[in-house]
This record gives sequence, structure tokens and C-alpha cells, in this order.
Amino acid sequence: MDPKIREHAEVLVDWSARIDAGDDVVVSVAEGAHELAVAVAEKLGDRGANVVTTYASDEVSRAYLRAHDGEFETAGHELALYENADSVLFLGGGRNTFATADVPGETRQAAARAAESVREARMNTDWVSTVHPTRSLAQQAGMSYEEYREFVYDAVLRDWEALAEEMAEMKEVLDEGSEVRLVKEETTERDGSTGPSRTTDLTMSIEGRTAVNSAASVAYDSHNLPSGEVFTAPYDPEGEAFFDVPMTINGTRVRDVRLTFEDGEVTDFAAESGEAALGDVLDTDEGARRLGELGIGMNRGIDRFTDSILFDEKMGDTVHLAVGRAYDACLPEGEAGNDSAVHVDMITDVSEDSRIEVDGEVVQRDGVFRWEQGFER
Amino acid sequence: MDPKIREHAEVLVDWSARIDAGDDVVVSVAEGAHELAVAVAEKLGDRGANVVTTYASDEVSRAYLRAHDGEFETAGHELALYENADSVLFLGGGRNTFATADVPGETRQAAARAAESVREARMNTDWVSTVHPTRSLAQQAGMSYEEYREFVYDAVLRDWEALAEEMAEMKEVLDEGSEVRLVKEETTERDGSTGPSRTTDLTMSIEGRTAVNSAASVAYDSHNLPSGEVFTAPYDPEGEAFFDVPMTINGTRVRDVRLTFEDGEVTDFAAESGEAALGDVLDTDEGARRLGELGIGMNRGIDRFTDSILFDEKMGDTVHLAVGRAYDACLPEGEAGNDSAVHVDMITDVSEDSRIEVDGEVVQRDGVFRWEQGFER
Repeated sequence: MDPKIREHAEVLVDWSARIDAGDDVVVSVAEGAHELAVAVAEKLGDRGANVVTTYASDEVSRAYLRAHDGEFETAGHELALYENADSVLFLGGGRNTFATADVPGETRQAAARAAESVREARMNTDWVSTVHPTRSLAQQAGMSYEEYREFVYDAVLRDWEALAEEMAEMKEVLDEGSEVRLVKEETTERDGSTGPSRTTDLTMSIEGRTAVNSAASVAYDSHNLPSGEVFTAPYDPEGEAFFDVPMTINGTRVRDVRLTFEDGEVTDFAAESGEAALGDVLDTDEGARRLGELGIGMNRGIDRFTDSILFDEKMGDTVHLAVGRAYDACLPEGEAGNDSAVHVDMITDVSEDSRIEVDGEVVQRDGVFRWEQGFER
Repeated sequence: MDPKIREHAEVLVDWSARIDAGDDVVVSVAEGAHELAVAVAEKLGDRGANVVTTYASDEVSRAYLRAHDGEFETAGHELALYENADSVLFLGGGRNTFATADVPGETRQAAARAAESVREARMNTDWVSTVHPTRSLAQQAGMSYEEYREFVYDAVLRDWEALAEEMAEMKEVLDEGSEVRLVKEETTERDGSTGPSRTTDLTMSIEGRTAVNSAASVAYDSHNLPSGEVFTAPYDPEGEAFFDVPMTINGTRVRDVRLTFEDGEVTDFAAESGEAALGDVLDTDEGARRLGELGIGMNRGIDRFTDSILFDEKMGDTVHLAVGRAYDACLPEGEAGNDSAVHVDMITDVSEDSRIEVDGEVVQRDGVFRWEQGFER
């Protein structure tokens, strides 16, 4: 076994999930994540955790969902599993990122709604998502398999404590702020097409919300490995936002998304491609048209877009917004926030012609934070 | 997908497990059983069942067990999963039948003891074990992959209702009987070696026990697909038994096992090879030295030994005994029976020089039942 797989497992089990002896752990294994599952099982055995391993196969899900009449109910045994779990480790890495592309959107939505209590139980554990590099993910990223493996381990095997210190500064700004404004100007000449405007000018409230210093560890309320972002749960957005980074929503390629927010909700949307998949998401429930997350990517170890939200949203010089569910960690104690069944992130490149303002003060311009060299107020 | 995989899934879900809408089903998927898992998921979706899919990877188990210090505890989340499940479908079919061969016996035993309540919860569901044909199982069987696939589907895709009728006759004999005697004479000249005697002469009580007409369906208290055996839970064995069919116990090849029973317990044992693995099993707990099962193979669709208990014990012209746990279905209401953490079957070929007596009357001689043509009293 490649020693990096074992290092990955060790970071996941110890730094990210903080597994202790006696913890009841669920390990969710995607079709291509077998090797990482073996390495993780070795660490979990050594730490004295109790393990249930689930098979998160996209092909199994597709077959099940397509055959179902759509009248889903909550699976009591699944709920019991997660209600009794301390941690859930999601080992992604499938064999075809489009494996569920022909499952109808309404089937997905119905299944997601029925599984909401299960999802909630999972979210109440010390869960962590990571991926094992597979050929399918390399293909999605437009890379060779070897190159992609290097990319993943460069992003995962980092000095997480040092990055956590860098990110603490951004968290402080957001925690003390009341309103965020994102601005991105359109400098490239438009060609007269009727496509959506590519500008962003969006304000949103963050008053009373707590930002998460997402340092790839549950000890930081951070649930992704790799991570390297600071995020909070905004509300009452007003304005327009354009997302120029391509993404894949439920197996469909979506590109150049434009959202219009009025009175805190998406009132209009468009996408250059994949608009129907986006529409399916927005129609899931009421919360799906409201914001759930504002995230600022600060992991400069991730040096390119790979069409994977786990990596893309962490990349330095990017900002992302999610429609749907908000993370509890960002909310005041006891407040529900956006409890949608979905959470879909959309990313915009802020390396040029962009700025982030908090309460009228520029915090980042063209990807440079105000505490960094080269910052222009 | 090979249409036979879909037929297999249909027999499993409908005939064997009798899945209804709303059932909470666990599907346990071995490393090589992906295709069958997809076909089963399709049927379960169509029937409206709720599904949790677990990954039963031998390599994951090996890594976990070898790294563990041996102080296992019951996994609360795993127990909750099975206590809330209606059915468990075990889809066997690994990639290496010796994948766990280097896990120490005492580690296995300790893990089995800690998991006993989980095992019990699983046994209380409508569980069914089957296998997907893999290259590893073909290798174990000494067959090509194509030949082995034919073998599996010939055994699985049968007229189960017709076989159930044939077996009802044997069940009646056992249900009405009090004592079974197995006799197998040694006719081949011994070469003066010091190896164990190859004869069997064993009596055991079956008074008050109920035989199972194992017709591959939970409706018949039968939990294997394929099946085709009639079994009961004997007790108070006295005498000697020799098992000439090779087997694999926890990854170790075991051959020519001889057990001596006195006062209902194994007091001496020997094996031509794999004796230590056998000893590990017998040392698991108290019940591991007592009998749990007497089974009479009646599936003549299975035409050869393949070193797989799921098939071998069902083959016509064989009888098997298991040390360890007895199946509840054989026991009087409320009686505990043998509740060992293990259940290990051992098979003997009764096609020659053999007879089965129930209360002094010969029921089968040299593989021919007394209701069949050619039977010699």
C-alpha cells in the first residue's frame, strides 16, 4: 500500500475525526475507496473504535432509486444506526461521477425529503468527508491518475495547525461583522449575446452568526478533509450573484449560474448549461431558495479547479455561496436556521476585479486579504 | 447485466426473504458482489423496501482485527441497526477466500464474543445468505469462472416449491423421531498410518426438536440461497464422527476432521490438516464443543463439492454436523439451546458404506432414502 494512503487515514482518524477508544464509528465507502477503507480500518482498530462499514455505491443507489415508485419513507434502521453513532467517516471516490445522472430529479428530491431525519442524525455526529483518488475523479479533474493522486495528497497532507492560525484572522472579521457585500465587476467585453450578466453585487446579513475556522477537524467544527475555508451562515441576501466555476449537481454539469435574490430568496435563476438540475435543487423545499453558507477559500495548497466541491470551495482566491441547509455550528444556540434537505455550493473566482466588504470595509481585493502584502484598500 | 443476476436477485428478494413494502432491509455486500448488489437494490426499490447497504470486506476486517488490541466491546450503533432491521441479505463473494488467514484465532474469538448480541439481533431478522459467483470462489471450487457461474445459477435458480415437497418427507421422520444414529464404515484398506480412524458411529438425541425443511425461504425458516437440506438441533451426542469433505475454517484449510463426543461434548479432536484452526473454534466458548446442527443434504442440483459450506452442505448424498450455535427454529418455544458464538459445519459423504437410522430404523442407506427406488433396508 502507498504510504500516503496510510498517512491520509491517520490524518482523517486522528486530526480530523479525533477518534477515541470505544467510539462507535460508521465508515461509508464509495465504490473506488476500498484501499483507503482498509487503511482507515487499520487505524480504527488500533485506536479501539467500534466500526460499521457501509457501501456508498452510486450504481446501487441508482438502481434502487430508479426502480422505486417515489413514495419514500424514513428508514428506521438507518436512523437508529446514525442516532447511535459517534462519528461518520465518508470515504468518497467513485468510478463514474455521472453514475446517477439518469435518476429523475423529483425522485432524488422525494428520497432526500424522506431521509431528512437520517441526514440530521448524521450531521449530529462528528462526521468527516474525504475522498480517495480514483481514475474517475482524475478524469473529472482533467488530470492523469498519477497527477491527480499528487494533487489530492498535496491538499490533504498539510500542516493543519499552521493553516488554522491563518484562518483565525478571517473568522474574527466575520464574527465581528454584520453585513457582507460581494462585488465582482465584468471587465471582459460582452459579445452582445443574450446570456446572463456576469457581474455580482450581493449583500447579506451575518449579524449574530458565528464563522467556522474550517481546519479539517471536528475540533474546529470542520467536517471536510481537505478543508481550508472560513464559512458562516448568511441570511437576507439581496442582489445578484454569478458563479463562473463549473460544477456537477446530482450528476449534471452546471455552468455559469446566475441567481437573483429578493427579500432573502432566489426569485430568478439561469445557467448556461444544466439549468434543469439547478431548478430541481431549488424546488426541493422552501429552504432550498435561501442561502445556507458563505465560504471563503483559503487553502492555497489547492492550485486548480477539479470540478469537485470538496477541493474547489477550499481553493484560495475563491468565494462560494450555498443554497439550502446551514451548518448548526454557525447558528446561535437553539436557533434552527435554514433546515433544507439540500446544500448545494456554487463558486466564484475572486482573483480579479473582485472585492469582499464587511460593514463597508474591504477585507479582500482581487484575492489579497487586507493583512497580506500587496493589499490595496 | 447477465439476466441470471437479475433472476438471482428476484429469487432472493421474493422467494427467499419475502420482502414487502416498508421493510427495513440491510444488504451486506462482499468485495466481489457489486453486480448482485445492484440487481438486488433494483428489486428492493421496486418492492418499496428501505435499504442500508453495508460493505462486508474481508480486507477491511483483516486490517481492523489485526490492528486491534483484542479488548473488543459491543458496537452500540451496529446493534441498533440490526435491532431495527426486518431483513438482512448477505451477498457473499469475495476476492480471496484466504483474505483473513493471518488474523490470530484468539482475536477472532474475542471479536465474535463481543459481537454476540449483534449476531443475535441479525439472527432475529428474516436474514438470507447467498453468494455472487466470483473468480475467487471459482478458484476455491477448482473451476473456471464460466463453469462456476453455471454451477451457482444451477443451484440457485431452481423450482423451490417442488424441492420443498420432497424435503417435507424427511422433516416428518425427524420430527417424529427421538434418536439419530449415523454410521459410516471404513471399507478402504488402511495403510498402517497413524492417521485418525475414518469411521463414524454417532448417536444423538433429537427428542422435542423440530426439523427445518430448508427450502431457501424465511417462510420455511430457511436462510440460505441455495438451500435444499433438512436440519435439526441434536444434543447429547455420543461416539465418533469423521468428516471426509475438506473445508475452510476462518481462512485455514481443514481436512479429515475426527471428533470424539462423550457426555454430549467434544472430548478429543484431530485433523489431517488445519487442526489448530479447528482447536480455536472449539475453544471459543462452552457451546463450541457441543453440537448445534444435524443436516441432511437433499439438493441434487448441486453435483460436486466446491469447498463452500453454502453449497456443500446442501448436496445430495451428504450429511453434516455443526458444533456451536443451534438455530432457534429447531428448539421448543422459549428454550435457549446451544447459544455459542460460533457455528461451524462439517460434512461427510454418505453415498457409500453409510446409513442414517432414526429410532433404530434405517432412513437412508448409501445415499438412497427409504421412499426412493433402490432403497435397501
